[in-house]
Amino acid sequence: MDSNQKPSIGFIGLGIMGASMAGHLLTAGYPVNVYNSSKEKTNALVEKGAKWCDTVGDLAASSHVIITMVGYPSDVEEIYFGAGKILDKAKNAYLIDMTTSSPSLAVRIAQEAEKRGCHSLDAPVSGGDIGARNAKLSIMVGGKQADFDAVVPILKMMGTNIVLQGGPGAGQHTKMCNQIVVAGTIMGVSEGLAYAKQAGLDASKVMESIGGGAASGFQLLNSGAKMIADDFAPGFYVEHFLKDLGIALDEADKNKLDMPALSLAKRLYSELVAKGYGRNGTQVLYTKYIHQ
Amino acid sequence: MDSNQKPSIGFIGLGIMGASMAGHLLTAGYPVNVYNSSKEKTNALVEKGAKWCDTVGDLAASSHVIITMVGYPSDVEEIYFGAGKILDKAKNAYLIDMTTSSPSLAVRIAQEAEKRGCHSLDAPVSGGDIGARNAKLSIMVGGKQADFDAVVPILKMMGTNIVLQGGPGAGQHTKMCNQIVVAGTIMGVSEGLAYAKQAGLDASKVMESIGGGAASGFQLLNSGAKMIADDFAPGFYVEHFLKDLGIALDEADKNKLDMPALSLAKRLYSELVAKGYGRNGTQVLYTKYIHQ
Repeated sequence: MDSNQKPSIGFIGLGIMGASMAGHLLTAGYPVNVYNSSKEKTNALVEKGAKWCDTVGDLAASSHVIITMVGYPSDVEEIYFGAGKILDKAKNAYLIDMTTSSPSLAVRIAQEAEKRGCHSLDAPVSGGDIGARNAKLSIMVGGKQADFDAVVPILKMMGTNIVLQGGPGAGQHTKMCNQIVVAGTIMGVSEGLAYAKQAGLDASKVMESIGGGAASGFQLLNSGAKMIADDFAPGFYVEHFLKDLGIALDEADKNKLDMPALSLAKRLYSELVAKGYGRNGTQVLYTKYIHQ
Repeated sequence: MDSNQKPSIGFIGLGIMGASMAGHLLTAGYPVNVYNSSKEKTNALVEKGAKWCDTVGDLAASSHVIITMVGYPSDVEEIYFGAGKILDKAKNAYLIDMTTSSPSLAVRIAQEAEKRGCHSLDAPVSGGDIGARNAKLSIMVGGKQADFDAVVPILKMMGTNIVLQGGPGAGQHTKMCNQIVVAGTIMGVSEGLAYAKQAGLDASKVMESIGGGAASGFQLLNSGAKMIADDFAPGFYVEHFLKDLGIALDEADKNKLDMPALSLAKRLYSELVAKGYGRNGTQVLYTKYIHQ
């Protein structure tokens, strides 16, 4: 990329997080092209100077850097591999998939991108809506060092903790590690606090005793506090978490790695989705125990 | 207790933690009587001024406050209910069981203590060897407010976070909450880091990406770091953790609370004990995944 001129960035997927992230790029002075399945979600960005593209292919053909932040691996596959979509239309571009998606798919995109003279990175994030809004995401990157170096100034507009984890797929694998740890932890927090309630304890006093020791951490202090307050509003959707757990389990199966706690978490969250809790926050797992 | 004179304290169970705790009481100027199943573990305390008692009954008969810090609920039951033991011999004394033990047993001790004119508190701790050595334990107490108030100056010699959680058994219940959260969390950490290894990631880079976010906490940062370093030396013994998980599960069963993550953790740790890992630290769970 020409370092004297800001490259144009195409951003696909302007949900709550994507909109914040694209906004930071606009503020930093990058020309930003946008495409989203529902156009109205891009209105505020277009008012701030983003350029709407009618198709994924138009966006891909006119952007030096293409960032995708969509829902499911199937969406990623479609916008990259679909006829007339990113891989068909992008020219010598940097393709950065920031969706939490399948490591294997990231490898396939990287292989196809290379054949077509493009540069590909997988770069999922953690930090949620608030991290996206405050440009404080943790960004876990897989790909080539040179490609990472080329786009890191752009990633720095969106995150504070940006680490190249390895080759293609390594960013997604790292995100999976994060979600696997969270899965075990949130089960422990849910069961521990459900036990407290069942035993007739005062949960906020319990937190005083256990909130600073071996049980402590983000999930106990944040999700746990929400459980105690009966606050099941989404910070992170159950249905998105279930997607992530499915990807992790598929990858583990490929590696013949038996993960019983992850399997259990996937089963419990599947049951929650089946019962209509998919758009609640992940802390809603707690209700499975207290409503037995 | 006469507030002008320091009451004599009988301490039963001078293992690594108990010895540190009794040492703080001696340093603070309390007269301390000691009894332990293996006498030689009390030698250092006796040199510092503690008085050895030949039997549990002798100790109980000559102490205003009796603190127990032994191994298993069966040990607790024996030293409290055995003929000629604590409940037989103690007179108008404060009985404080700091062993991690069964909440139901704590209730039984409290009932029997009351009949015999004694005051009973359950007061298990967290913070491990280091917390005991530095007098920075978290002490979770169950019992009557007046009894708590009477002994809290003594507890303050051993801990910094001392909370009366409720009536008899509430301290043990709170400790169970702690262990249940830890059980889920350590499974998540083990599986997440085993996944990282299997995927060929650099675990210390993974920690850079995930160590500050939604997966973060004491277990990831401490047990996780030990897993990565292949350090399975005991901070907290597998066999003691398995004891705690068994108590928690028994209590949950009594309350008809189904805890699948806790059940899974108990099964995995039982397998580790069966394979000879009982005297390793709890982080050895990780090896179950990487040696598959």
